Amino acid sequence: MERKALKKLIDSKINLSAKVGEEISIIGQVYNLRLLSWGGFLILRTSSYYIQCVFDNKCVEVDADNLLTESTIKLTGKVKKAKIKDKALYPRDIEIEIKEIKIITKPSKLREPIDITKRELKINLDTKFDNRPYTLRHPKERAIFKIQAVILNSFSNYLTSIGFTRISSPKIVFTGAEGGSNVYKLDYFGKTAYLAQSPQFYKQMMVGVFGKVYETGTVFRAEKHNTSRHLNEYVSLDFEMQIQESFIEIIEAEANALRYIFSELAALCQPELELLDVELPELNELVLVKFDDVHEIVYEKYGKDYRGEKDLAPEEERLICEYSKKEWNSEFVFVTHYPSVKRPFYAMDDPNAPEKTLSFDLLFRGVEITTGGQRLHKYDDYVTKMKKFDLNPQKFESYLQAFKIGMPPHGGLGLGLERLTAMICNISNVKEASLFPRDINRLEP
Amino acid sequence: MERKALKKLIDSKINLSAKVGEEISIIGQVYNLRLLSWGGFLILRTSSYYIQCVFDNKCVEVDADNLLTESTIKLTGKVKKAKIKDKALYPRDIEIEIKEIKIITKPSKLREPIDITKRELKINLDTKFDNRPYTLRHPKERAIFKIQAVILNSFSNYLTSIGFTRISSPKIVFTGAEGGSNVYKLDYFGKTAYLAQSPQFYKQMMVGVFGKVYETGTVFRAEKHNTSRHLNEYVSLDFEMQIQESFIEIIEAEANALRYIFSELAALCQPELELLDVELPELNELVLVKFDDVHEIVYEKYGKDYRGEKDLAPEEERLICEYSKKEWNSEFVFVTHYPSVKRPFYAMDDPNAPEKTLSFDLLFRGVEITTGGQRLHKYDDYVTKMKKFDLNPQKFESYLQAFKIGMPPHGGLGLGLERLTAMICNISNVKEASLFPRDINRLEP
Repeated sequence: MERKALKKLIDSKINLSAKVGEEISIIGQVYNLRLLSWGGFLILRTSSYYIQCVFDNKCVEVDADNLLTESTIKLTGKVKKAKIKDKALYPRDIEIEIKEIKIITKPSKLREPIDITKRELKINLDTKFDNRPYTLRHPKERAIFKIQAVILNSFSNYLTSIGFTRISSPKIVFTGAEGGSNVYKLDYFGKTAYLAQSPQFYKQMMVGVFGKVYETGTVFRAEKHNTSRHLNEYVSLDFEMQIQESFIEIIEAEANALRYIFSELAALCQPELELLDVELPELNELVLVKFDDVHEIVYEKYGKDYRGEKDLAPEEERLICEYSKKEWNSEFVFVTHYPSVKRPFYAMDDPNAPEKTLSFDLLFRGVEITTGGQRLHKYDDYVTKMKKFDLNPQKFESYLQAFKIGMPPHGGLGLGLERLTAMICNISNVKEASLFPRDINRLEP
Repeated sequence: MERKALKKLIDSKINLSAKVGEEISIIGQVYNLRLLSWGGFLILRTSSYYIQCVFDNKCVEVDADNLLTESTIKLTGKVKKAKIKDKALYPRDIEIEIKEIKIITKPSKLREPIDITKRELKINLDTKFDNRPYTLRHPKERAIFKIQAVILNSFSNYLTSIGFTRISSPKIVFTGAEGGSNVYKLDYFGKTAYLAQSPQFYKQMMVGVFGKVYETGTVFRAEKHNTSRHLNEYVSLDFEMQIQESFIEIIEAEANALRYIFSELAALCQPELELLDVELPELNELVLVKFDDVHEIVYEKYGKDYRGEKDLAPEEERLICEYSKKEWNSEFVFVTHYPSVKRPFYAMDDPNAPEKTLSFDLLFRGVEITTGGQRLHKYDDYVTKMKKFDLNPQKFESYLQAFKIGMPPHGGLGLGLERLTAMICNISNVKEASLFPRDINRLEP
């Protein structure tokens, strides 16, 4: 039996800029290496940085045969002031003058034919995804997922701070929540089960317990179409809350969550935002437009006639965002009052216009990133609506019991993490905002 | 088009104890109602509280026919000092003297035959789980999941604070990571896919990108045995990190994460801990015992001979925890150096004892809550080990490419959220620490 006193954790979050003039030791990977007649440059990748390090042949012995890119090394050197222009490197106000390099481990072969040290990874998407363990080491690829991690944590932290309780709902479920054909089936010990398309039923049941809940988890959509807007598996940021007066409270909660996320990104991701040449959006006054008015505006201003259609066409989503940015100075458009026939059975109809629902989508930079709204909260209303939708309430009894027992007026939303990340980072294909994307053709790595 | 100025979010996190003497309005559910000749008591459940409210028939008109338990009401009243003994209620230093009750919505029928206002929910597990939307409204049930939410968030926040990056890996995968038969199969557009048993391969690939990563996500185990220690779907708290010198660094990182979790629970969950009559464990000096020594101790001290067995029996896990608590004053036992044959192919063998691995389990209160260890980091070592395990490296090529390219020495662990919650809350069946548990017989709600 061995008893250990605690050592301090290895922490790579050293503030290097505060160490100018000091000698430090740091462990990381050789991202790039440029050998010159007098010495050379080595770019070291750590958890937080891509640091420029220089060495002089007269002072440092470099084992050039074994010092390969993607080797892990322990580097000792002196921190010096510098002015670095390359945005892929940071911190950009210092560099390290190498004293010693110790190779800890080296790759079994030379690097892949793809060159991740180039400023831009100019390869097609399949090559990029096939080689994900390697291509993600490119500074621009890595930056996307640093940003994504901050979005994910800020969503959680904001909702926790205003009294929401985090939940974890099952992903193997007895019925699909969203209906339709894009649900994965599974043999569950002889029964048919499904993969959750959303935590909808569970977060509603949990509103009856906690009043306000959120979840960040994986959801599954068996999309048969390979588009730039869809993933077959994605992370859904979900919340569900008691409503006091109106479903607008859900929109306000989302707006505040987004504002918090943007402020955290501004505070924590400056190097990544600069590298990706991204300006954070601003969400000031809320823009709310009714569904029917979107049809009208798109017809009047752009001559495209979708009036009478029960859903928005992707073209309309783009155009109304364009219009909003120009006319209302907002990149965020909350489209409200979607037609009842296009919303799920649990959507609350508008008492003033029963063909419409108290629901909304949030459009951002031309793409829908959120679907939300008020839900029915009375058992009898569920039974009536489900019959109208040709659904059998008995099959949903374990969910509907929550409404029999008693539920507050409530509503909520689902926000796609990858879509939000992609739109913030100006990425045109949402798959690039997924570490290991899944689509109809892709299951690896 | 409507433009909205921002209203302040409805926040139920009012500090009621600071409002003594003031009149407040508050929305919540009627948890319990006791009508007496002079008036009565109403217990209001909000996101944060179970608050005692009193009313006097002379001052307040109560619509007793419609004021049912589990109705949502808006209650106005004066906050008064009180001394409440019932631990199910809090805050316990105040009560509300009701001025007015407005019923917002009421249940469609009277409450279920189960009485959730009893101090203890004395019902069998199946009844409890069948009626989850209702039984979770019991203060003791709800307390478990308040605690679980804090554990989940503290794990994230701690690792973020020391430079780990949060990742989201796919749950539909091309191969099971842990091997064995307990993996769910899925038809993925004509291909066979699997549900992830752990994020193992993905978090390793991501160590090559970020150096240290973590994930909190659902994992799936097709357990055919219905035991008190197993769930077929659970939340796994995973991290994976670069190692500088030894796999003990992983153990130290976990110990620090657990210490942080316990300090957050102490700060945020006092009412829940008191209600469940739970004392938080202390994790001071680390206790590390080698696998072989556990066999020896259990044989010497308890006369049970498991020597020669390649795994620990549940009885041994219980006994070594009992022994550790008594002799080493620790409820946490890190058992190290498990036999190579019982660990997955990616486990690093001990260079000083090749039949053993640089791995560990963490046992807490008699149950294994973590499995972790150092992993292989060289491509050639993977190929050799996989052949020994009768696995075909070619089938794992998309994962193994990370090691070809170059990977640092690294390791990590998986910590079961439900098991940790159950052990902290002294719950004997792990299913009670899952909101909507899944086992071979249970797929609903």
